[in-house]
Amino acid sequence: MTYCLGISVKEGLVLAADSRTNAGVDYISSYQKLFDFSVPGERVIVACVSGNLSVTQAVVHQLGQDIKNGAKDSLHTIPTIYEVARYIGHEIRKIQDEDRTWLDQDGIKFQCNFLVGGQLPGEASEVYLIYSQGNCIKATPETPFLQIGETKYGKPILDRTLTHESSLDAIAKCALLSIDSTMRSNISVGPPINMVLYEADSFEIRHRVQLQSSDPYLAKIRKYWEWALREATHNMPDPEWNRVSIDAEPDFALE
Amino acid sequence: MTYCLGISVKEGLVLAADSRTNAGVDYISSYQKLFDFSVPGERVIVACVSGNLSVTQAVVHQLGQDIKNGAKDSLHTIPTIYEVARYIGHEIRKIQDEDRTWLDQDGIKFQCNFLVGGQLPGEASEVYLIYSQGNCIKATPETPFLQIGETKYGKPILDRTLTHESSLDAIAKCALLSIDSTMRSNISVGPPINMVLYEADSFEIRHRVQLQSSDPYLAKIRKYWEWALREATHNMPDPEWNRVSIDAEPDFALE
Repeated sequence: MTYCLGISVKEGLVLAADSRTNAGVDYISSYQKLFDFSVPGERVIVACVSGNLSVTQAVVHQLGQDIKNGAKDSLHTIPTIYEVARYIGHEIRKIQDEDRTWLDQDGIKFQCNFLVGGQLPGEASEVYLIYSQGNCIKATPETPFLQIGETKYGKPILDRTLTHESSLDAIAKCALLSIDSTMRSNISVGPPINMVLYEADSFEIRHRVQLQSSDPYLAKIRKYWEWALREATHNMPDPEWNRVSIDAEPDFALE
Repeated sequence: MTYCLGISVKEGLVLAADSRTNAGVDYISSYQKLFDFSVPGERVIVACVSGNLSVTQAVVHQLGQDIKNGAKDSLHTIPTIYEVARYIGHEIRKIQDEDRTWLDQDGIKFQCNFLVGGQLPGEASEVYLIYSQGNCIKATPETPFLQIGETKYGKPILDRTLTHESSLDAIAKCALLSIDSTMRSNISVGPPINMVLYEADSFEIRHRVQLQSSDPYLAKIRKYWEWALREATHNMPDPEWNRVSIDAEPDFALE
């Protein structure tokens, strides 16, 4: 499995990914799943991938080839992030057209998902999720994050803490916790964690980090987070036992 | 969907369940999923259910009938929680034997899971998970909780905070947060929440609570928890950007 997420807020965006790939529990390995196609000072484009590794690698390879060969449409020429998302969707469709019959007949899942985030001149910074079918959706102020892969374990922390007004620092920490929670609860998601933070209108990624499993910062925040959750649970108001609860009545306040 | 959990620690146990049942997104209703079969002062047996509602209702009905009819084997006669779990497994198998062909041929999932927890004289308090196939596993000191239904969203809080030494108060709060996190992130899990807390060797359930969606306590802890998580994220050490992390070396401490 895999877990990647993209968060888009007023101040900019964060994209992060784990690195674990598994074909069954007895074949686990590490692959990079976050790719930076930016041209510093001009355009910022970062992609994360999940799903069938041969399909995502083929798509990423093709994205690189199009840049290298100076294709008319490439990540270095397309003028909007929406069109970038559509272009990646188109590449996914092409690879699947080629391989799908062969994978399908042996019951192998060929699905994949991409996240792509960044900013192009004259546009706001954006994050898109590209489905295996090639269509896409974008993160909005109401739902500022998008996830792909093993998404459930890491969703509560995002649901509870993120808003479009959150600071970049806050969303970066929240992204790390979301991935770390997933790694803690599911062995199919694993380090290193790759994360980039992009400040809107800077047209350059100035903050990036890669955290190995034994990274002392990762150990520190994990320890801190477990302590913080235990403290928060401890200080939480006690349940009011043996009280039959009644649907809200105005004079039924607990305070 | 459904979410139920059972936690077994040194001091006793907690069982909790949501109440939402859905057949697609356009048919959502509430059913009780936590059932108390205890005889106060003599034996404590509480069960939670997930999966196909007609199967779980049929099993719960049969458990009640066996008690009512004074069957040789019933929840009021069986001497150990392990045998109780096997007996429930046996009842699940019987109902499935009857209905499986008919459900299967229309592609309807007939699977279900049970949690059963309690204490019988001369035994420690225990929680078991009974699979749809009728076999079972129990919670142990290393893994003090068992979950059924929509388990992923609520697992990180349990993984991060619970141990066999946790107090009953702490595990009750943790159980509520685990269910509330799941309700927040997934609409197929919903209130009312039913929860019982059992102090080992008391042979009586003295703490129980039912929380409706509009319950002020539930609103209070949700608000508290979101505040606590935001605070904890805010106070978390900042990422050390643009540092290439290296697999643990003794002199590479952050402190």
